[in-house]
Amino acid sequence: MTSAGASLAPGRRRIGIDVGGTKCLGVVLDEHGAVIDEQRRDTPKGPDAIIDTLVELAGSLGQADSVGVGVPGLVARNGVLRAAPNLVDINDFEVGALLFARLGIDVQVDNDATCAAVAEWKLGAARGATECVMVTLGTGVGGGIVAGGQLIRGANGFTGEIGHMVVDPDGPPCPCGRRGCWERYASGSGLGRLAREAAEGKRLQRVVALAGGDAEQVRGEHVQAAAREGDAEALQVIDDFGRWVALGLANLTNVLDPALFVLGGGLAASSDLYLGPIQSWFSRLLYAPHLRPHPALVFAQLGTRAGAVGAALLADVH
Amino acid sequence: MTSAGASLAPGRRRIGIDVGGTKCLGVVLDEHGAVIDEQRRDTPKGPDAIIDTLVELAGSLGQADSVGVGVPGLVARNGVLRAAPNLVDINDFEVGALLFARLGIDVQVDNDATCAAVAEWKLGAARGATECVMVTLGTGVGGGIVAGGQLIRGANGFTGEIGHMVVDPDGPPCPCGRRGCWERYASGSGLGRLAREAAEGKRLQRVVALAGGDAEQVRGEHVQAAAREGDAEALQVIDDFGRWVALGLANLTNVLDPALFVLGGGLAASSDLYLGPIQSWFSRLLYAPHLRPHPALVFAQLGTRAGAVGAALLADVH
Repeated sequence: MTSAGASLAPGRRRIGIDVGGTKCLGVVLDEHGAVIDEQRRDTPKGPDAIIDTLVELAGSLGQADSVGVGVPGLVARNGVLRAAPNLVDINDFEVGALLFARLGIDVQVDNDATCAAVAEWKLGAARGATECVMVTLGTGVGGGIVAGGQLIRGANGFTGEIGHMVVDPDGPPCPCGRRGCWERYASGSGLGRLAREAAEGKRLQRVVALAGGDAEQVRGEHVQAAAREGDAEALQVIDDFGRWVALGLANLTNVLDPALFVLGGGLAASSDLYLGPIQSWFSRLLYAPHLRPHPALVFAQLGTRAGAVGAALLADVH
Repeated sequence: MTSAGASLAPGRRRIGIDVGGTKCLGVVLDEHGAVIDEQRRDTPKGPDAIIDTLVELAGSLGQADSVGVGVPGLVARNGVLRAAPNLVDINDFEVGALLFARLGIDVQVDNDATCAAVAEWKLGAARGATECVMVTLGTGVGGGIVAGGQLIRGANGFTGEIGHMVVDPDGPPCPCGRRGCWERYASGSGLGRLAREAAEGKRLQRVVALAGGDAEQVRGEHVQAAAREGDAEALQVIDDFGRWVALGLANLTNVLDPALFVLGGGLAASSDLYLGPIQSWFSRLLYAPHLRPHPALVFAQLGTRAGAVGAALLADVH
């Protein structure tokens, strides 16, 4: 286990910016990885406006040796954002080259879940790990992989699209065009869907009441709220959700044999509700559990800053 | 793309032994990776007899700088075979340490599918690749992963147990204790099962005839034989089989983003039957196919020797 400071290149002041669907968060890290400044901007529409915002935000954050940018979509290894379903008018957006032309310093771009993985690996819950998988449980499911002591990026830079592992080919349709992708179950939207299915036939009454009496309006937060009140049916939905999360973790264990999983994303904020069911199902679904130490399941430590902090660290891992 | 010779440490004479359920195959590689000797022994029952056989076989293959052993099961990073369902009385079998004590030279042990991956990566279909996945389609499904230019071994040495990715939690039971593992569909035994299901209700008559008239006796080879005759129902089963193989390849692409897959194992011998359906379904199941080059699907080049050749090369990659 190396210390945080020791794993970073010395003497550098790093800017990291996480471009979200509605907000851009920029941070400045000192040479030890501490956040010494933080600013937000609204995410504008269209590539030109995004570049202008990123340039202004970086300038406002001051001098730096490098700028890293995390974006929500498929990022090629040359810094081109190929597609981003949650941004407007994005298609082969050359974020890296355009920013470099304006800023004149080292610019690195990667997927936001990959950035979160880098942050947790270098400064958070997976510090010092040589084999770990970051899983972001949010509206969808994303991920980042460290194997053999390095960040795995893949032939095109697209590793870690773990939310689109098909876990049931007859499952619900996914916007990606296939059926039964893991994120149809193991995400915030998956939790809502599991609850709406469970609410059929006058069941799940407390959850439906919290959704204003309309079963079609049930969302993940209503299940969470009812579960926190101790509602047995809501807890059953949480257990079912935990089973689906664990199923994907078990699949990833079979592929990658990590020492630990870091669970992040929006659902990590309610980790007290989920960890028990996920742990319990993971133990039951793990292949050859008597022959190996269970991979550890830990929750992310860097919270909503993980993407920006990881973006700032991209120059250290690329 | 490096040449085979250039990627191997010079001046070494390497022995590799592939321990199968019924036979052990030993090879000697020269310093350029060419097979210069090859011998077989029956696989005996029990750990002591296996060690005796391996020592005798290695001795018979002559002087060497290293001995590598591929075994069918879960191998820990210290060379201990934790479990091997197809060998007799194997449980925490210290193959590596016991062989080293008898032979006094460098001994490396790894899973047989991992060995096959190493062979194809160093000397076969994946030569020079930095991102590739080997998939062995045999009685079960195994695999080996190269990412970031290195063989990925995992926290416990168990990476690549890809046959136990669950692709349908309501699917047929797997000997591993879960349901719907990929190898229930994408293996030789999976092909037989798909055919027996398709044979219900007097369908698949030609295949059933080739199995002696008993639908319960249908095996993968009967489907293959009927498909080679042009039987439409058999070809439909092959297509369905190809869809399941492709589903798992698409899942692995989402996780690892490889540049190519090498398909090996017993079914690779009939690659002419399978490649078309697998390719076709893979294109349909790939996530974001318009945004990336399709990973190449190639068949293994080293045939039944892959495990032994890769075992001989373990000293170069461990």
